[in-house]
Amino acid sequence: MIIMGVDPGSVRTGFGVILCEGGAQKACGHGIIKPQGAHTDKLQAIYEGLTRAIKEYAADACAMEMPVYAKNPQAMLKLGRAQAAAMLAALHQGLTVVQYTPKEVKRAVTGNGAASKQQVAYMVRSLLKLQNEALSLDECDAFAVALCHRHRQEIGTPRQAHSGWASFVRRNPHRAV
Amino acid sequence: MIIMGVDPGSVRTGFGVILCEGGAQKACGHGIIKPQGAHTDKLQAIYEGLTRAIKEYAADACAMEMPVYAKNPQAMLKLGRAQAAAMLAALHQGLTVVQYTPKEVKRAVTGNGAASKQQVAYMVRSLLKLQNEALSLDECDAFAVALCHRHRQEIGTPRQAHSGWASFVRRNPHRAV
Repeated sequence: MIIMGVDPGSVRTGFGVILCEGGAQKACGHGIIKPQGAHTDKLQAIYEGLTRAIKEYAADACAMEMPVYAKNPQAMLKLGRAQAAAMLAALHQGLTVVQYTPKEVKRAVTGNGAASKQQVAYMVRSLLKLQNEALSLDECDAFAVALCHRHRQEIGTPRQAHSGWASFVRRNPHRAV
Repeated sequence: MIIMGVDPGSVRTGFGVILCEGGAQKACGHGIIKPQGAHTDKLQAIYEGLTRAIKEYAADACAMEMPVYAKNPQAMLKLGRAQAAAMLAALHQGLTVVQYTPKEVKRAVTGNGAASKQQVAYMVRSLLKLQNEALSLDECDAFAVALCHRHRQEIGTPRQAHSGWASFVRRNPHRAV
């Protein structure tokens, strides 16, 4: 499967593509779109840039990070626009679009839901053997969300935490001797 | 010229189409898109619904209201997404997309930049002879922004207010006898 991770933004939209075969994963490509001009030009640039990348790498699925809660409503408006342009580009190419929270992405890549951006970048480089590659943080984030999707495909949905002994026994009757 | 006004929203996206010929203006059609389901389904619904409407009415230009400043960042994110879907639908059909502030729209339709939604709706019905038509407030807003664009096309950019006598004379030398 070829997964494209996208980190959308109105200033910089990063993408990273990974190929997953059996237990192995490999980086296929990455890039940054820096849209300029009016709102409409920016939307077009993100849409067209991602469409080109999806076609070039023949991606099957698109994973995206759910936006964090920003205090500035204008920033959220721009983020929403960038996100929609990226989503529509993927949908129009027939890809499934899946979203993950920043915490899910960090946990999948580093094992720690509160990891720093640098820790995520370190693990992305290490998992994809990209130690010597010039990668921006946006591209690392894009690779991270692609890896998170891959991880989620393998393990399925995460197990629910048990609220107590009774709940544990109800879900695991064979463990109650 | 056929102008489509759009009032984008993730719950309801209204549109209103007007035909302008000479000094006359006429309502051609209007509608509401109520997207449902996941984020991606909603974006698709807005994009496809507007694309259909643009083709049906052969619109030449698309006018949109710039979003108001909302306190809730999540609401802004959703508004940004809906807006981008609407903009991309228009851009992909070759239309020019123009944005106006709520104040500009209200001033163009009612003469008062602080008019209420009801006043705007009243003027829209009266200008387009739609007194007996069933119109939601979203459709009225969409017609209002289309009328604003028409108005702006006719008068060009608005005249600047004069800050005093000196400024008035500088801009209108022929009026100073």
